[in-house]
Amino acid sequence: MKPYAEMTKEEQKAELVELKASYKKFQEMDLTLDMSRGKPCREQLDISMGMMDALNSGVDLSCEDGTDCRNYGVLTGIHEAKVLIGDMMENNPDNIIIYGNSSLNVMYDTVSRAYTHGILGNTPWCKLDKVKFLCPVPGYDRHFAITQYFGIEMIPVPMSPEGPDMDMVEKLVAEDDTIKGIWCVPKYSNPQGYSYSDETVRRFARLKPAARDFRIFWDNAYGIHHLYDEPQDYLIEILAECKRAGNPDLVYKFASTSKITFPGSGIAALATSPNNLEDILSQLKNQTIGHDKVNQLRHVRFFKDIHGMTEHMKKHAAIIRPKFEAVEEIFDRELGGLGIGEWTKPKGGYFISFDALPGCAKDIVSKAKKAGVTMTGAGATWPYGKDPQDSNIRVAPTYPSLEDLKTAAELFTLCVKIVSLEKLLAE
Amino acid sequence: MKPYAEMTKEEQKAELVELKASYKKFQEMDLTLDMSRGKPCREQLDISMGMMDALNSGVDLSCEDGTDCRNYGVLTGIHEAKVLIGDMMENNPDNIIIYGNSSLNVMYDTVSRAYTHGILGNTPWCKLDKVKFLCPVPGYDRHFAITQYFGIEMIPVPMSPEGPDMDMVEKLVAEDDTIKGIWCVPKYSNPQGYSYSDETVRRFARLKPAARDFRIFWDNAYGIHHLYDEPQDYLIEILAECKRAGNPDLVYKFASTSKITFPGSGIAALATSPNNLEDILSQLKNQTIGHDKVNQLRHVRFFKDIHGMTEHMKKHAAIIRPKFEAVEEIFDRELGGLGIGEWTKPKGGYFISFDALPGCAKDIVSKAKKAGVTMTGAGATWPYGKDPQDSNIRVAPTYPSLEDLKTAAELFTLCVKIVSLEKLLAE
Repeated sequence: MKPYAEMTKEEQKAELVELKASYKKFQEMDLTLDMSRGKPCREQLDISMGMMDALNSGVDLSCEDGTDCRNYGVLTGIHEAKVLIGDMMENNPDNIIIYGNSSLNVMYDTVSRAYTHGILGNTPWCKLDKVKFLCPVPGYDRHFAITQYFGIEMIPVPMSPEGPDMDMVEKLVAEDDTIKGIWCVPKYSNPQGYSYSDETVRRFARLKPAARDFRIFWDNAYGIHHLYDEPQDYLIEILAECKRAGNPDLVYKFASTSKITFPGSGIAALATSPNNLEDILSQLKNQTIGHDKVNQLRHVRFFKDIHGMTEHMKKHAAIIRPKFEAVEEIFDRELGGLGIGEWTKPKGGYFISFDALPGCAKDIVSKAKKAGVTMTGAGATWPYGKDPQDSNIRVAPTYPSLEDLKTAAELFTLCVKIVSLEKLLAE
Repeated sequence: MKPYAEMTKEEQKAELVELKASYKKFQEMDLTLDMSRGKPCREQLDISMGMMDALNSGVDLSCEDGTDCRNYGVLTGIHEAKVLIGDMMENNPDNIIIYGNSSLNVMYDTVSRAYTHGILGNTPWCKLDKVKFLCPVPGYDRHFAITQYFGIEMIPVPMSPEGPDMDMVEKLVAEDDTIKGIWCVPKYSNPQGYSYSDETVRRFARLKPAARDFRIFWDNAYGIHHLYDEPQDYLIEILAECKRAGNPDLVYKFASTSKITFPGSGIAALATSPNNLEDILSQLKNQTIGHDKVNQLRHVRFFKDIHGMTEHMKKHAAIIRPKFEAVEEIFDRELGGLGIGEWTKPKGGYFISFDALPGCAKDIVSKAKKAGVTMTGAGATWPYGKDPQDSNIRVAPTYPSLEDLKTAAELFTLCVKIVSLEKLLAE
């Protein structure tokens, strides 16, 4: 089929009639499918069920240094968990704090602490007239929700397959000392699945921010979440690179096992420089006596070491790779050559990013919803939920069954075609 | 033996020589004993080991409404956990949010949220020149650490066996709209083991604070932590009483299973009014997608219901009751009638409060430390760590073995005697 824009109005109208007939059939199927959130599916959760056997009443719940994990204490986490998560994050265990089950909570708390008490002796953000964050777009809605909640002004920075526009990032942070942070998902980014290039990471590590309390919020949520054995994306480790660049305190790095074991019951972690760690611990000691050490121990006993974890990730890949490929196959087949959308083909992570014709995203999502398929809200990938082009839609293929996913992807492409045609006909 | 103060100087000196000889013998024993923190002992932790068998790989990890506890979601906690904790807290499940493993973290976050965003539309505390809290004394050092960390001025309010001095509380909160909160451990209080009288609770529920965002921080940490089947202390449920009094939004109530199952891996909760809950959830949704539901399910499956939990608490009591009684017996025997100290005899909770002669607490704790027995730091039970009388010492009998505890209590009484005599001789 030729590009829609090259069709005559008559051809467009004829095509639209056919598409609407197909859409009606979908509506009659009474679907309730969900491609909205980056949630593991049941089969993925099942592969971690062995973790439920890692501890039982016959097992000693002491960790290697003799600490009884059942009791109070150990603010930064048990050593063997720091070793495991350190290997996962490619950081020294001494640079790591293990938290509870949610890395989002760690990020929130990190912003909140900067807001209430400032970073390394700098003025608390609550005492400043203006605080700004850079937000690579499209990006992760829950990041934006945190900064919005704290009244932090968000400045969009365009993403490319290499990462954020570093010319813009460098210029803005050098000029404006009210810019205090940037949200990054550097590997298999949310939603595009892009991984920052070597040059991008090096330029991040060499930033010269005007604000001494500027920090990179490096949410490496998908660090080992590859879809393929080969090829895999590679990301330069940012803490080491910052240290080499003479910028050791520039980064807070976050990760969790939410999409490795159980989102509802994983462990989250923060890695950063000794200076930042000391700063954080002077706060954290007032907030808690320690996070859940038994669950830390459970994770360590289950995986044993990082090799156990990487082998485990292959099982995840085997389950979700066909889902990504099915969506891509359907998008290629149904939308290829029509000139009404572009989409990414990630080698890892949890999302595919779809860019519709400008002005179409909201209508597409709404049309899909009316036929029973829930997508992430249009605009969600932009600060304040406002995509100026009304173009980007995040596709989350992991949660539905393969069969449901195919149905949902078919319907989605149908909605893209209908909305695009209506748009073209109205021009 | 007659009161030390009634002895002649010669008698005092002779006694001191004997006591110092005994102290030397203790020093030669090379002790390392700890009566400093309210930590359960190993035997207490062992009685919850069955919880480690409550879930395994053969068990369905869905909760009653079908939600898969392994996955994301359920911000306020799973329903059956709210029922169990609701019964424990004597609150409606609908008034409860289940959190992670630390009620201290919940209290910190509650103060932090008021600081960053205000309570129910009132000015965020960070935008105010002055914020004050009332602090019943002696009290819990970690409470005071939170308010101190946020720069909140702490005003001590004397405790009696009935609870805080309510004349003073009523007067201060009515007069001063910069007073935004009060820390309470209303049952088996830390450290005295006092439970607030019916009249005290009723007066709390009927407070007329000048500040609309004044809240009672009601840390019911020891709600079901009785030492005896009979007699037990009874506490009027504060949320219901506030509702009856037309003050439904006055209280944030906190509790956890830290000293029921595992301090390192329990579940914490907050109970409050619908208005406050809505206010909290508008923040919490930005902080996390949900706390550890698998651990919530584990607790529910282990206890089944509140009866299972109360039976469980009897096992704790059987382990720690002899420890409390041993300390009291030694205090009675060694210090009774000497007029150099007073102590409480709680019927629950985790502490005994000891009041030495004014000016003696620091020296007593230091002297015990030099012979290998760690007590809670003198002053810790007061805001800013400053006990104006230098008199109060918190005794935590639960963690050491009974044998060690007896040794530690003997040494402690010896230190009390020596320091008191030296004080009397110096007068």
